[in-house]
Amino acid sequence: MDKSKFKTLLTEKTNAINEMLEHFLPEEKGMQVTVIEAMNYSVRVGGKRLRPMFMQETFTMCGGTEAEMGLLEPFMAALEMIHTYSLVHDDLPAMDNDTLRRGNPTTWYKYGETAGILAGDGLLNYAFETAAKALGNISAMSDLAPEKKAELFERATKALTILGRKAGIFGMVGGQVADLEAEGKGDAVSEEMLLFIHENKTAALIQAAMTIGAVLAGADASEIDKLEKCAYNIGIAFQIQDDILDVIGDTAELGKTVGSDEENDKQTYVRLKGLETAKRDVAALSAEAIQILDSFEKEHEFLSELVNQLIDRRK
Amino acid sequence: MDKSKFKTLLTEKTNAINEMLEHFLPEEKGMQVTVIEAMNYSVRVGGKRLRPMFMQETFTMCGGTEAEMGLLEPFMAALEMIHTYSLVHDDLPAMDNDTLRRGNPTTWYKYGETAGILAGDGLLNYAFETAAKALGNISAMSDLAPEKKAELFERATKALTILGRKAGIFGMVGGQVADLEAEGKGDAVSEEMLLFIHENKTAALIQAAMTIGAVLAGADASEIDKLEKCAYNIGIAFQIQDDILDVIGDTAELGKTVGSDEENDKQTYVRLKGLETAKRDVAALSAEAIQILDSFEKEHEFLSELVNQLIDRRK
Repeated sequence: MDKSKFKTLLTEKTNAINEMLEHFLPEEKGMQVTVIEAMNYSVRVGGKRLRPMFMQETFTMCGGTEAEMGLLEPFMAALEMIHTYSLVHDDLPAMDNDTLRRGNPTTWYKYGETAGILAGDGLLNYAFETAAKALGNISAMSDLAPEKKAELFERATKALTILGRKAGIFGMVGGQVADLEAEGKGDAVSEEMLLFIHENKTAALIQAAMTIGAVLAGADASEIDKLEKCAYNIGIAFQIQDDILDVIGDTAELGKTVGSDEENDKQTYVRLKGLETAKRDVAALSAEAIQILDSFEKEHEFLSELVNQLIDRRK
Repeated sequence: MDKSKFKTLLTEKTNAINEMLEHFLPEEKGMQVTVIEAMNYSVRVGGKRLRPMFMQETFTMCGGTEAEMGLLEPFMAALEMIHTYSLVHDDLPAMDNDTLRRGNPTTWYKYGETAGILAGDGLLNYAFETAAKALGNISAMSDLAPEKKAELFERATKALTILGRKAGIFGMVGGQVADLEAEGKGDAVSEEMLLFIHENKTAALIQAAMTIGAVLAGADASEIDKLEKCAYNIGIAFQIQDDILDVIGDTAELGKTVGSDEENDKQTYVRLKGLETAKRDVAALSAEAIQILDSFEKEHEFLSELVNQLIDRRK
């Protein structure tokens, strides 16, 4: 896919997801309105919508149909809300104490620390309220045969179970915990620990995105396993690439200071394995990810290009 | 029901719920183990298990059967986890800054502020992971007719939707927001605002308990509406009684300082309406709650006594 076509498609798809997200945001009303505003602000300043995009593209690649979109969209929105709440809490004074994110004030910095905590709680909770709408949509399909209805409920149940697991203490929150424990410990952080952090903090939500997309489209167990591996590779390659760019990147292009990892005595994959091995591993992980996608017969050119662009961000 | 029989039953039921909860707590393993320990600590130091107890008793009163317990127990555990996370976050330095709760160190005070935030997030997320197990249990009922399966899925979907709504920004979190905004504002807080806080911060989770119990037992819409009203009354009466006891109670018996509301310039129902009206309203709200319970044919003596004891805590 040529670069300008990809860019056009990417913009179109991002805009469509933003529009869809708006329908799922809570109404700004009632005596708790300031924190609802803080929740919606946090979602709206967010950027690339990669996780819902991965979910949607995987859903399509696995043969998901228009009729099943009522199951898909609530999960797309829920996943983006979970990603958002994790940033809101991550930025808190007691965590990373960040005041800016992508040029905008962070939620706690704009609305106060208490509102930051409660907006995060509100968003995490609202993510599951939103996912539950997928199940509600199935309940409402009154002319569906009971067999088909039960089957759709089973798919949505699997999707909900994946969402919960990958977002929680055995997924993203667990990665967050380990990441904070590893902070500033440099070489004392083992390769196992570093991969645990990357797998849970980053790969877990990409795995949720791709496997939920597949499950909702009715993919079989072996396809779901393959996509879980594919998403693992994408997440790990993305993080190793992050470490590489911190060493060799361009500060202006990246929007963060090059060399900051070393300054903060942060353990990185480059520090553990050397720059050349790190580069080779990124290439191998991405190649395998693309190979897995290519084992699917349905068209997935955009998805493959998304993986490439995401991992090699210098292009 | 005589007092000693009630006390024996209460202890038995609390112990059974504690035992059940243990089965649903996350395993303390992995590189994120300290925060899992903090999550489980928070649940284990918790006390009376009133919310799961209300759910179970209402379920039984509405004719729920042993066969449906696989749906009920995950929701009982999930509700207690949500109640627990709300206390964990409420105690944080940026919120109420409490170091002790029922004589035990609060979670953030014992494990650190970062762990306090993440343990709360982990618990809220795990609550929904746990509720999803009810749906997973339905998926696993392979010998069930599709009609019956779809029906059970619909009940569990309703229960999940209630849980999410009553716990979130239009329920408990919303009440929390309003409560923090009302802090120290005394007479500037209107009756409407005070009732909004009590309804959402306290009554919402009791409403979740009773209506989920009813929904899972297959109660009809009018029964569910009645129980939502009943739970509203219980929650509001409980809070007004709290305000009354702050004026007339015995410090030693209550475990908190009498007169602290006035000292903190806290708006209360007694301050708004006077002591006599407050007492009369508590009596009327509880009488109506009991009356609603009495409109159910099935035995519910323990549940009625639980309501009485809860509201009139001087007994």
